[in-house]
Amino acid sequence: MMEYTRLTTLEAVNGLTIKELDYRIDGKGNSIGCLLYHMACVEEVYQIITFEERDPTEEELLTLEVGLSLGGNAHQKIYGRGIEFYKERLNLVRERTLEGFKIKEDSWLDEVSPFGPNHSANNYFRWFHVFEDELNHRGQIRLIRKHMERKEEGSL
Amino acid sequence: MMEYTRLTTLEAVNGLTIKELDYRIDGKGNSIGCLLYHMACVEEVYQIITFEERDPTEEELLTLEVGLSLGGNAHQKIYGRGIEFYKERLNLVRERTLEGFKIKEDSWLDEVSPFGPNHSANNYFRWFHVFEDELNHRGQIRLIRKHMERKEEGSL
Repeated sequence: MMEYTRLTTLEAVNGLTIKELDYRIDGKGNSIGCLLYHMACVEEVYQIITFEERDPTEEELLTLEVGLSLGGNAHQKIYGRGIEFYKERLNLVRERTLEGFKIKEDSWLDEVSPFGPNHSANNYFRWFHVFEDELNHRGQIRLIRKHMERKEEGSL
Repeated sequence: MMEYTRLTTLEAVNGLTIKELDYRIDGKGNSIGCLLYHMACVEEVYQIITFEERDPTEEELLTLEVGLSLGGNAHQKIYGRGIEFYKERLNLVRERTLEGFKIKEDSWLDEVSPFGPNHSANNYFRWFHVFEDELNHRGQIRLIRKHMERKEEGSL
């Protein structure tokens, strides 16, 4: 499911230019580039949480925060990059995820631990959550891309 | 995963008025109402495909097509309805899905059959596809809602 999700994410951004990756609807909200960057950051955090069984350190959060939080400032820091930049980040993080999975037993997926202040979850849910977040943003990418194409055609 | 997905979809549309459910960014693309309607139609088609192991009939497609295809005409047919209309449709379809699952053995999930002209898939993948499509559109709903709120606030 994670791999299928990624395939469709990459299809959704195929051929985009730097300018298009930085495009924001009405100059607000997230760019496609920011959403791709976010996906890689989310996956990295869940590697730390599930493989190393700890929360990210302050130092790690400094690097990851801009990609995790999105919204306000992300587009001021994540822009001017070509599609290869985002693809490389996604691929690199995914490689480490697959390596992590390899050394875990299937029973590890069922291990339950706290999830946020009020819930608990097993590792299966946590990785479901990683790709359900990606699918959510893939939908947004498709919508932003369509909006941009309408702008480019002059039909908006 | 299907039930979690649905929970988050319903959270994303909580409290929307008829006018808000019909809102479209720059008067183009899909409304949130159309996306909710689409989700129910997709699920209904996959019930036919996986439980009855057949394609939908011409007659069934007549009813479902507007919700399945989205885009162009959907918003001209699906509008003016309150949130309860969409919720009821989603709930009704889901009830039938859960009933369908109940009478199937787990091995049914692994049964492989053709999927489109060039692929094959098992029933697990088909139902994954149902909720991955919903998650995609949940992401769009969140984006459309945010755009609408910016409009309402006058910050656009």
